[in-house]
Amino acid sequence: MSFQPTPADKFSFGLWTVGWQGRDPFGDATRPALDPAESVTRLAELGAYGVTFHDDDLIPFGASQSEREGHIKRFRQALDATGMAVPMATTNLFTHPVFKDGAFTANDRDVRRYALRKTMRNIDLAAELGAETYVAWGGREGAESGAAKDVRAALDRFKEAFDLLAEYVTEQGYNLRFALEPKPNEPRGDILLPTVGHALAFIERLERPELFGVNPEVGHEQMAGLNFPHGIAQALWAGKLFHIDLNGQNGIKFDQDLRFGAGDLRSAFWLVDLLESAGYQGPRHFDFKPPRTEDFDGVWASAAGCMRTYLILKERAAAFRADPAVQEALRASRVDELARPTLEPGETPAALLADSSAFEDFDPEAAGRRAMAFEALDQLATDHLLAARG
Amino acid sequence: MSFQPTPADKFSFGLWTVGWQGRDPFGDATRPALDPAESVTRLAELGAYGVTFHDDDLIPFGASQSEREGHIKRFRQALDATGMAVPMATTNLFTHPVFKDGAFTANDRDVRRYALRKTMRNIDLAAELGAETYVAWGGREGAESGAAKDVRAALDRFKEAFDLLAEYVTEQGYNLRFALEPKPNEPRGDILLPTVGHALAFIERLERPELFGVNPEVGHEQMAGLNFPHGIAQALWAGKLFHIDLNGQNGIKFDQDLRFGAGDLRSAFWLVDLLESAGYQGPRHFDFKPPRTEDFDGVWASAAGCMRTYLILKERAAAFRADPAVQEALRASRVDELARPTLEPGETPAALLADSSAFEDFDPEAAGRRAMAFEALDQLATDHLLAARG
Amino acid sequence: MSFQPTPADKFSFGLWTVGWQGRDPFGDATRPALDPAESVTRLAELGAYGVTFHDDDLIPFGASQSEREGHIKRFRQALDATGMAVPMATTNLFTHPVFKDGAFTANDRDVRRYALRKTMRNIDLAAELGAETYVAWGGREGAESGAAKDVRAALDRFKEAFDLLAEYVTEQGYNLRFALEPKPNEPRGDILLPTVGHALAFIERLERPELFGVNPEVGHEQMAGLNFPHGIAQALWAGKLFHIDLNGQNGIKFDQDLRFGAGDLRSAFWLVDLLESAGYQGPRHFDFKPPRTEDFDGVWASAAGCMRTYLILKERAAAFRADPAVQEALRASRVDELARPTLEPGETPAALLADSSAFEDFDPEAAGRRAMAFEALDQLATDHLLAARG
Amino acid sequence: MSFQPTPADKFSFGLWTVGWQGRDPFGDATRPALDPAESVTRLAELGAYGVTFHDDDLIPFGASQSEREGHIKRFRQALDATGMAVPMATTNLFTHPVFKDGAFTANDRDVRRYALRKTMRNIDLAAELGAETYVAWGGREGAESGAAKDVRAALDRFKEAFDLLAEYVTEQGYNLRFALEPKPNEPRGDILLPTVGHALAFIERLERPELFGVNPEVGHEQMAGLNFPHGIAQALWAGKLFHIDLNGQNGIKFDQDLRFGAGDLRSAFWLVDLLESAGYQGPRHFDFKPPRTEDFDGVWASAAGCMRTYLILKERAAAFRADPAVQEALRASRVDELARPTLEPGETPAALLADSSAFEDFDPEAAGRRAMAFEALDQLATDHLLAARG
Repeated sequence: MSFQPTPADKFSFGLWTVGWQGRDPFGDATRPALDPAESVTRLAELGAYGVTFHDDDLIPFGASQSEREGHIKRFRQALDATGMAVPMATTNLFTHPVFKDGAFTANDRDVRRYALRKTMRNIDLAAELGAETYVAWGGREGAESGAAKDVRAALDRFKEAFDLLAEYVTEQGYNLRFALEPKPNEPRGDILLPTVGHALAFIERLERPELFGVNPEVGHEQMAGLNFPHGIAQALWAGKLFHIDLNGQNGIKFDQDLRFGAGDLRSAFWLVDLLESAGYQGPRHFDFKPPRTEDFDGVWASAAGCMRTYLILKERAAAFRADPAVQEALRASRVDELARPTLEPGETPAALLADSSAFEDFDPEAAGRRAMAFEALDQLATDHLLAARG
Repeated sequence: MSFQPTPADKFSFGLWTVGWQGRDPFGDATRPALDPAESVTRLAELGAYGVTFHDDDLIPFGASQSEREGHIKRFRQALDATGMAVPMATTNLFTHPVFKDGAFTANDRDVRRYALRKTMRNIDLAAELGAETYVAWGGREGAESGAAKDVRAALDRFKEAFDLLAEYVTEQGYNLRFALEPKPNEPRGDILLPTVGHALAFIERLERPELFGVNPEVGHEQMAGLNFPHGIAQALWAGKLFHIDLNGQNGIKFDQDLRFGAGDLRSAFWLVDLLESAGYQGPRHFDFKPPRTEDFDGVWASAAGCMRTYLILKERAAAFRADPAVQEALRASRVDELARPTLEPGETPAALLADSSAFEDFDPEAAGRRAMAFEALDQLATDHLLAARG
Repeated sequence: MSFQPTPADKFSFGLWTVGWQGRDPFGDATRPALDPAESVTRLAELGAYGVTFHDDDLIPFGASQSEREGHIKRFRQALDATGMAVPMATTNLFTHPVFKDGAFTANDRDVRRYALRKTMRNIDLAAELGAETYVAWGGREGAESGAAKDVRAALDRFKEAFDLLAEYVTEQGYNLRFALEPKPNEPRGDILLPTVGHALAFIERLERPELFGVNPEVGHEQMAGLNFPHGIAQALWAGKLFHIDLNGQNGIKFDQDLRFGAGDLRSAFWLVDLLESAGYQGPRHFDFKPPRTEDFDGVWASAAGCMRTYLILKERAAAFRADPAVQEALRASRVDELARPTLEPGETPAALLADSSAFEDFDPEAAGRRAMAFEALDQLATDHLLAARG
Repeated sequence: MSFQPTPADKFSFGLWTVGWQGRDPFGDATRPALDPAESVTRLAELGAYGVTFHDDDLIPFGASQSEREGHIKRFRQALDATGMAVPMATTNLFTHPVFKDGAFTANDRDVRRYALRKTMRNIDLAAELGAETYVAWGGREGAESGAAKDVRAALDRFKEAFDLLAEYVTEQGYNLRFALEPKPNEPRGDILLPTVGHALAFIERLERPELFGVNPEVGHEQMAGLNFPHGIAQALWAGKLFHIDLNGQNGIKFDQDLRFGAGDLRSAFWLVDLLESAGYQGPRHFDFKPPRTEDFDGVWASAAGCMRTYLILKERAAAFRADPAVQEALRASRVDELARPTLEPGETPAALLADSSAFEDFDPEAAGRRAMAFEALDQLATDHLLAARG
């Protein structure tokens, strides 16, 4: 297998990822700005199928209308020349000082209204460019201290904002759904809707929940020490995995945004296994930051690495699932038995109570001695991941 | 103020808390078993209003029917003698080896059926003893390795179990609601429904969501580095804070179950402030483990300490909210402005787009310079917490 | 007690703390630059006794010699006008792109040599301004990936750099000692000498270990989940607490640099208790970042808050130690008995083996039942911290 | 390559690892006790070269002298029959309630003396069985609350204990060195000497530092979020890697003791690369716990998996280092240049100051633009780890 990506693999990249200049909390930029059109071209050459953007990635904050049109035109030309898609767009509601206390949940009402307008404006552009997913990362919606934010009021405002945006999209007839992106902290001390779970729960209280799903990011969940494939499985189970941000992270620390496959490689393997076996149809979107030690060659090397590692893991997961010894080990661990309902069809509480084999005649001591045989199964997975089988 | 608890404070304790014998992963028990009736009596003397229990706390696993009745009778006598309530009960689905791969989501179907029956049996007892909340902590529902558990199938089984239990409770006419207790890990490597958010989201997919809420535990959310009052606020916002487990934890590490107020004291302050100001009516339930360095005097000292610290923090939070300087600081930080809707009554997307003050005439630079004044506010909070004001 | 700081309290602040403009990984500056002379004046008014600086805080990177002299002159004038001291200085070896792979351990040898020269230059200025401590934070000495840094070679280069600097200081006759500042990660994925322990160990391999100690920072150790007072106690025990950076942090996450007392308040209490009871004579140096939500009023409020909270905690710790009930509780927990040597004076292994009371006649079961009574002691501490005693 | 271990690989296992019965904080034992002689036989069959033990693993606590002799005799017979070595032994100073507040640093002096005697007794046995390393894990040396332990006094007692033990070993002429095993927490809230760094620093204050090194455990350092290979590199640099405990851990949470290779697989790769390239000569000792879901087949499968994964990673690391493309990439990243001293031979501070190329003529802007090319290098490492190269 060549591990050479093609558009059929549906790999996409944010303009802000390859375009990150390397400014961090303790250091200045190490790379010059990158022209979005150049990014489109280079990513297409590497085998990607699409690019995504924040409004301010494409059109600098405060640009005039004519500048704006010029930026959009050049971007469109690059898209046309390469055949690259724009499957997703999003709003920058975090860089400018006006958003220092948040956007949709800022204490200041005029900031909240401005944030809505900035978002609506970019939704128009997203729809125009053919995006089908609109991501909302509320990176500044949060607090550093206890009295600064009334969280229940903030959730009211958060709901109000998304209800308005859903109304707008519906009225306009845009083919666009929203994907909320959770993160536990950074840049705020604590961010609202900190995990996939909190975002999924919030969505159920919106007026048009069917228009909302999640955009989980590998590193964001891992910053809370959570098992990423488990969170993705719950999102899939809820029918809410609308988009995904792939990258790497070394455990609970600052947001590293490493290239995909760096950090927890086992977790990446199980993630690819899940996405591929669950029939996830959306883009495989990379949201990472090429380290500031790199020049542009390193930027493109890291972007290529994201895709290459995904393809390697995809091959390994497929071989794992196809191996008869693995299938036998899965049965030995009764993984298949979990797919069988616990109750008989139509079984009532009364019927369950009447089944003495379930309790009175059940021998917990004997059942407690049954081996689960998970270690042998996991060693087979290790062997397949490492291509050390047979 | 005396900080002396009375039943009106609604403090409750699990039998398993004061009764913990001090067995840990690296050490044997340091205290003998405690008679449940003795716990009831001592906790009543200390000022608690209620006790809670797992089935196996009250009736040892495997007891005969007549032994069972004897245990229940003695427990009832202690309740009657002291006037103590049993506001909550729960099932032990984790100690016995039969549950080593979980209970409602065990790969083995007969274990799942047995777990349901064990739970139904204790639900009957809970209802008989007047409990109104039934807690479900799925401590063994999880995995250590990636192929061992099909998480989507596990969530199907989890839903199936809770739907059956809700049907049972409804049919029986019990005045009982369920409270799911999330935990990210320990004893399993990763546990399903790891945070308050994941549990809230899961509930929305059940057949009778109105019967289900959450029972968040301080330490469990803090084991994922999450802001506990923020999670409680989201549960309250969703109308789902059915019960709460109060204890202490020093950040992301093993589950410490320290007495309430140990660990993150600021977070405890904001939690009490939130519970009291939100009008939470349920029990203030302590789920902690007196350290194994202690004898029974230490056990009762730590139980008393939980309640005392809660009352101190309640006094401090009330003084904070009543202080005119604090109210002024809250206004200076526009915390009140967050309660005002972002939109005008009935404002449509079109109306918002037509409001040039929201975008075209809005000056983000000027707005970005406005101070939030959160530091002065938080120092006032520190002063009140420490009784160092004035 | 007034909690009003005076120079006798020895509070100092870095120019970079109050001068931080609020640029973070996801946002632009929210405050203009602050003139160092203004900082000196304002901090003096608030009751501080000293300021500290990185070379580039005072003299912008790349300034000409005459600009340099102008900056230094204005700074000196402010110091003279206010009586403020400069107890410590340090080098910025992290902001400029040239240090993207480190300074003393950069793979590029010419970068290493340049870093040494930049440091020597600022050591001259530090000595001239009367500083007695020179801090070295190697924030960029580390790596994101496994092959990028040969750690053993890096430690050789680290040692080489500090040996050279110690030789320089000795030759020049400067009254200056070095304090190494550990940090586990951020901005690098992993930083060399990640904790107080690693730095203390490293020092022992230097040519002039007597010139080297540590400068622990509250948040840095807490980013690794470590107990900060425990680390300080080990540094004191080793005679190596040369300086300290006081701030606040909410557990394991990105480097928050909150004001002192924010974050873990109990830990701050035990820290002040330790520093004051151990007779630590150095500056109480605040290294924090006023949140970017604040304007300059908020900056000064947060600086004042650092000092105020320290003084409150100092009062509480003193009251705790002076309380006869606490002293009795400490004896009940045999805390005093730990100060007594385990062995008799001059006791040999043979003598210990001959003492049958130590083993053959010792009753571990009885000893195992003795209560440590730590919970009652810790509740007394809580009461004192919260001024809720009596 | 067969990945089949032989004694030449120097793999060893603790009796307590395969013998762990699965008792955890929330669950009872799931496996019966394992006869030490059986463990010796099975491990030998699997390809191990040695076993290690705590005193109480071999001889139950409180056994009579004749029972003791019987246990030792049977163990020796199994060793003789299999040719297995006993390269290391250690003391159980944590299971019995007598050690609930620690052993060498317990507040109770008689407990401290008893702990010394218990240790001396097992040192005699260790020497008799040919062990050359004596591990000391102070799992109970710590505290849950701030006043309970005077850490400086505790370090005095810790030093006193190790000085006495070193004196004893020296007097007896045993060929035995001590290896201190750090751990940040669990079972105590905070443990003294929490990391490799803290232990290395402590050793330097002992009377016979040459007799003391460290025994780092993968999971223990990862519980503090530290880079394990970095810690091992510092221990090697200090000449102090006397022994090592290999296992797996999924980040910052409770102590998981997974089999080697589970958890962070990249870190395991770099660890094996380091141990093999640094010429570490000691045992590759596995200190893990087969999950309680397993029966004895699973126990032996997991033990075999530890060794198999080590051998796979060893093969991959060797291939990585031998690949000309990797060697070229290392040069492109100037990894080799870090081995070159920063100073010329004999270069003085004055000479460095006189070298204008180091500062006055150095162009930091140009140097800041030089790419480090770490991403291409790390992708090569990924390819080799996954056997996806070429």
